[in-house]
Amino acid sequence: MGASAIREILKVVAQPGMISLAGGIPAPESFPLELIGALTETVLTRFGSAALQYDRTEGFAPLQAALADRLGTRGIQAAADEVLITSGSQGTLDAIGKLLIAPGDSVAVEAPTYLGALQAFSPYEPEYQTLETDDDGLIPESLEEVLKHKRVKFIYLVPTFQNPTGRSLPLSRRRKVAALIQRHDALLVEDDPYSELRYRGEPLPSLKSMAPGHVVYTSTLSKVLAPGLRVGYVLAPEPIARWLVIVKQGVDLHTSTFSQALAAEYIAGGHLDRHLPKILDFYRPRQEAMLAALDEYFPREFHWSKPDGGMFIWAEGPDALNTDELAHACIRRCVAYVPGRYFYPGAGQGLGTMRLNYTMTDPPTIRNAIRIVAEVFREAQSAARGGEAQSAEYGGAAPG
Amino acid sequence: MGASAIREILKVVAQPGMISLAGGIPAPESFPLELIGALTETVLTRFGSAALQYDRTEGFAPLQAALADRLGTRGIQAAADEVLITSGSQGTLDAIGKLLIAPGDSVAVEAPTYLGALQAFSPYEPEYQTLETDDDGLIPESLEEVLKHKRVKFIYLVPTFQNPTGRSLPLSRRRKVAALIQRHDALLVEDDPYSELRYRGEPLPSLKSMAPGHVVYTSTLSKVLAPGLRVGYVLAPEPIARWLVIVKQGVDLHTSTFSQALAAEYIAGGHLDRHLPKILDFYRPRQEAMLAALDEYFPREFHWSKPDGGMFIWAEGPDALNTDELAHACIRRCVAYVPGRYFYPGAGQGLGTMRLNYTMTDPPTIRNAIRIVAEVFREAQSAARGGEAQSAEYGGAAPG
Repeated sequence: MGASAIREILKVVAQPGMISLAGGIPAPESFPLELIGALTETVLTRFGSAALQYDRTEGFAPLQAALADRLGTRGIQAAADEVLITSGSQGTLDAIGKLLIAPGDSVAVEAPTYLGALQAFSPYEPEYQTLETDDDGLIPESLEEVLKHKRVKFIYLVPTFQNPTGRSLPLSRRRKVAALIQRHDALLVEDDPYSELRYRGEPLPSLKSMAPGHVVYTSTLSKVLAPGLRVGYVLAPEPIARWLVIVKQGVDLHTSTFSQALAAEYIAGGHLDRHLPKILDFYRPRQEAMLAALDEYFPREFHWSKPDGGMFIWAEGPDALNTDELAHACIRRCVAYVPGRYFYPGAGQGLGTMRLNYTMTDPPTIRNAIRIVAEVFREAQSAARGGEAQSAEYGGAAPG
Repeated sequence: MGASAIREILKVVAQPGMISLAGGIPAPESFPLELIGALTETVLTRFGSAALQYDRTEGFAPLQAALADRLGTRGIQAAADEVLITSGSQGTLDAIGKLLIAPGDSVAVEAPTYLGALQAFSPYEPEYQTLETDDDGLIPESLEEVLKHKRVKFIYLVPTFQNPTGRSLPLSRRRKVAALIQRHDALLVEDDPYSELRYRGEPLPSLKSMAPGHVVYTSTLSKVLAPGLRVGYVLAPEPIARWLVIVKQGVDLHTSTFSQALAAEYIAGGHLDRHLPKILDFYRPRQEAMLAALDEYFPREFHWSKPDGGMFIWAEGPDALNTDELAHACIRRCVAYVPGRYFYPGAGQGLGTMRLNYTMTDPPTIRNAIRIVAEVFREAQSAARGGEAQSAEYGGAAPG
């Protein structure tokens, strides 16, 4: 339901003249468009017809090898054949749902959490256990509480530059979470699409590197190459890995070989290492512009996340300020965002919250958009205060 | 289980020196490899970064339009936005299973049938109703019997050049099946990957064109472009079409935009029309070589399908001649095929049957392979006769 509400917003957003802070997609300027022709040539020369043929469900071997190398530099030890290629992260999440969730099983998720994960899991009819979060992401004590009292099938977490909040779990909390899942012998799905989009600060270790036997690690090339290729990957402990392959075979046989071959060349040829800094230099000023504009314009009652990377900022205001209703007023003034309530698994939460995306809009336009949203919010607040004042007046003068 | 047995066979087949009649894949020589570079250039010029970006779940609009045009020439009327793009036919079959099958629901399938369909459906725990077939494919009376006594969720059929048998439903049976599903208000999934691989004879109308409101039609570009792109498509009556989109969104968001853009250019640019005759000219002599070799070498107790197209010939011998056991003897002599029993939903059927693929092997090698298989079978038959004779002898001379 949340997903379809967001689809409606995104349709409105596609109208000309609209400034969208609503999307969750990379800027087209971040794609290595000028490389694709040369990559295609290399792929055809190197792999020939194999790049167009059916391939193993596990993945195109040269891509598995390139990703295993790259994961090594990020502190995750994996043999090439342990890296399974999926049709985007969504492909991983669906396979995990299909494999692990029987109707009524408990799945623990942050609130708010990534909507696409709920969409992937919900058809398998889990019961969601909600984990509490604050400005530093998941509160470990909340996870401990759930693990103590519930048998959860798995915990789903986006620990770095989360969607929708942009928040990252600090090292101390990562240690606690890793210890907790080991102590309770629990399984955690670590969804990590954004960690390479770091604009400042030091990388944080993945949970996978801290508790490898208890973590299914999934990531994607959507943010560092191109989402249209639909290439993701997953590292899972046995026997889950073996079963994920069997599930995937029934779902799509394998991921596009041609997409995988392009990705393999992009990584192994050193293009990703050369291109990634350009993506970061492109996004960093957009994020800084949004943070500065929020400081400059947003009502004092709001506070927001200040991430070191990723694609989103999360703003929280008073519940009375219903961001869902006000989204319509903003759209009338040609600015769109996603109301935060849709990212909560349960109803009635996050009424005063919102997700703001900065990847698709240039800095001056971001500044202008935040100014407009702030104006709409202020007007709503003063109308509400006027209404209160009025109703107090009328209350006083009520016929009785 | 059948699938994993076949995977084992295909692993053996990958060994050097092995002649494979076991695969079910197009010859790499059939791919328009020399076009891919130019298609990539056109795609990048025409669509730019949109070819690398997230796209609508329904499909890349230019591909939807190109396929709608093409379906029109095959007697299937469809608007562009009714043609939904999937990640290969497998993507369609999985989405259909997820959408339509609740545990215990009846799904009617031919025996033998396409294994990938069983693999896609079985995780949703249907009960299979087996439909009888003969040399002309599905026997309509068998379908009528099932529809009279069972509420089936849907019927799954490959009516043209079926996998594994190569058989096609003749026009008169198509009319009966179309009338039956309309009379019983039943839903039929028509899987049509092979009908464009026609080496002789006139095209047969699709069931979709005869009973559009009762048929989900699915096809693929795997056999006429390249399977590695993982592009299939589906046409479904409402509300199934709308729900398939929602299901697909949770499974993989959308099919690779880049693959879809290449496919759109391949079709709309007239390349498919120019390339398809080359594929047919490449496969036709291979099929003729296999049919001739079967005539020349195979034991008289066998009979086999004589399809006008597709990728397979189905041979049936006496049950006593266990093709599963004899497959090992053939592999020792460096020839592989798939024993037919794996294509039956139930156990103990088709013990004397086998699927023979001719797309991957050149005519002289096909002739040689069929000769070897025939020899192995003859040796087994005469050993069995010898054994019988022997056991009769020993039986006669038995003590007691």
